[in-house]
Amino acid sequence: MNEEKWIESITRRLDRHPALLSGLDVGPGDDAAILSPCAEPLAVTTDLLSDGVDFLVGKTDPVLIGRKAIAVNLSDLAAMAARPVSVVVSVLLPKQAPSTREGDLANGLVQGMLPILEEYQTSLAGGDTNSWEGKLAISVAAFGRTSPKRSFLRSGAREGDHILVSGALGGSIYGRQYRFLPRIPEALFLRKFADIHAAMDISDGLLLDLTRLARASKKSFQIREESIPIHSDVFQFLDQEIPGARLGISPLEHALGDGEDFELILTASPKEARRLTEEQPFLSSEFRAFCLQEGYPIAKEPPRLTDIGLILPEGQASLRIAPDGRAIPINSVCGWEHQF
Amino acid sequence: MNEEKWIESITRRLDRHPALLSGLDVGPGDDAAILSPCAEPLAVTTDLLSDGVDFLVGKTDPVLIGRKAIAVNLSDLAAMAARPVSVVVSVLLPKQAPSTREGDLANGLVQGMLPILEEYQTSLAGGDTNSWEGKLAISVAAFGRTSPKRSFLRSGAREGDHILVSGALGGSIYGRQYRFLPRIPEALFLRKFADIHAAMDISDGLLLDLTRLARASKKSFQIREESIPIHSDVFQFLDQEIPGARLGISPLEHALGDGEDFELILTASPKEARRLTEEQPFLSSEFRAFCLQEGYPIAKEPPRLTDIGLILPEGQASLRIAPDGRAIPINSVCGWEHQF
Repeated sequence: MNEEKWIESITRRLDRHPALLSGLDVGPGDDAAILSPCAEPLAVTTDLLSDGVDFLVGKTDPVLIGRKAIAVNLSDLAAMAARPVSVVVSVLLPKQAPSTREGDLANGLVQGMLPILEEYQTSLAGGDTNSWEGKLAISVAAFGRTSPKRSFLRSGAREGDHILVSGALGGSIYGRQYRFLPRIPEALFLRKFADIHAAMDISDGLLLDLTRLARASKKSFQIREESIPIHSDVFQFLDQEIPGARLGISPLEHALGDGEDFELILTASPKEARRLTEEQPFLSSEFRAFCLQEGYPIAKEPPRLTDIGLILPEGQASLRIAPDGRAIPINSVCGWEHQF
Repeated sequence: MNEEKWIESITRRLDRHPALLSGLDVGPGDDAAILSPCAEPLAVTTDLLSDGVDFLVGKTDPVLIGRKAIAVNLSDLAAMAARPVSVVVSVLLPKQAPSTREGDLANGLVQGMLPILEEYQTSLAGGDTNSWEGKLAISVAAFGRTSPKRSFLRSGAREGDHILVSGALGGSIYGRQYRFLPRIPEALFLRKFADIHAAMDISDGLLLDLTRLARASKKSFQIREESIPIHSDVFQFLDQEIPGARLGISPLEHALGDGEDFELILTASPKEARRLTEEQPFLSSEFRAFCLQEGYPIAKEPPRLTDIGLILPEGQASLRIAPDGRAIPINSVCGWEHQF
């Protein structure tokens, strides 16, 4: 297969799915695409996935790889409370002798990307492909409509804010890292109906990402260990040996450090946080109606909001509060950080 | 070095160069950046460069690799007559034992990227980095302001249009592929002061790219071989053996198929084409003043516009007209196409 033929096959699929070309004055195929003008400011983000780091070619279904490459970018837009508009996709494909397996990889990626783009009403504005004597890597840049006043930033946390987290954490490596639902409708619902001070999504682990949020806000934080929502995947698969799984650590440590949960960390005033945890907006019929109206997928198990801690003034040590009341300083955070 | 420290060092450099943060309501460091609102529609493009295909780590100066990764994307914006606003950058870095050489690669890339971004008044909105057991790859997505009515599209060529090309072609592999000036001010000047029907930039070779432009416009074309401007690099370095150089072909074939010229192919009415080739707008003092006013670099050797052929109706064979008048059908185009 050559690049031009592969792209032609993608173009034919786009023509049958108008949502994949929505929001574009000039679609893919030219030197650049042109987004339709819009008064709302544009959020732009990029996320890079590579073989051996974010997936394993030969073990991971290419469809799931393609899906994940899109989903992680949509999750970044959710963390800003931005409505996805469009993506561009770059793919580095391993060069091999022509074979069925090879075609499967390129086509599988596309089969993973297009449906999730369509589900989240996001168009494919363009892309680029190289084949090379190396492994698979995918870089996506995603664009979403937001408003500077209604965006969720990492830097907005205020002293005394409560820290909320959507859903449950840990054990994503047992499959959820590929199948998670980006929290787009949840974020847009909160943007409209709640007063959120700061937000980010959890990609590298709750502790590491919360440390980043606190640093961006020039604050520190404390979390109550017993309040951390641990995902059932952690208990179900604990110490099951698959590549990349962290073994021999407690369920709590999985929830704090596994990463790739792609849930939202949010901060809000104590009063607003209490309202949100009491009302559980994502379990409401209003939220269901919102998803239907906006055309976003409805989660079978909508995420609960859990209050896990507090934003503290800058300069204090960030703390984990153990069930017995001991305060443990968070010095070296666990989680994923790229070394090179 | 770890990712976070590297990014902090980049952030410090951005803070010293305000142009690198211009046009952003929210700069890099959050889950996404937010572009300042603007009435003009946004052009978006992405280009992926990889080791062994677009550069050779160990042979190519990392500074030139970083520069090229930005420049090829700016060239795509030029081909749309879009004014660059911002980029996001993804880098896949080879994981190796800590060494000076290693740090040099990551820092060299940044040293190549930031100055060209600043020269073209383009901000760095964000990025992502992975380190892996593979080779270097860089994906950039670039955003530029344009207007649907004043954009240059590949699809706008009309029957009878003359085909113009900026600059001279061939032999880019001997260094120009890294050092070329994206034709941003040239395109913006033509957008304002000329009536261009169609445009694209030459990345994969004149014949292949012209074939794509003609196909997008549902036309065919003919070019006069003796009119093709052959770059002096072709004659200077002819048959010099460096990796990737095409050997044993004529200077004309170099100009037609080498690629990575990053010059503009343009089409315009016969009258407008004549005016442009007679006036040579890029050699004018008006153009020089325009570059100064817009803050773009002034080329030491501004590109001449050359009339190289004609747009023909769809369905005719595209042709090369030899110096003796023979019409040679262009069947299999030469140039670079990725196979996988």
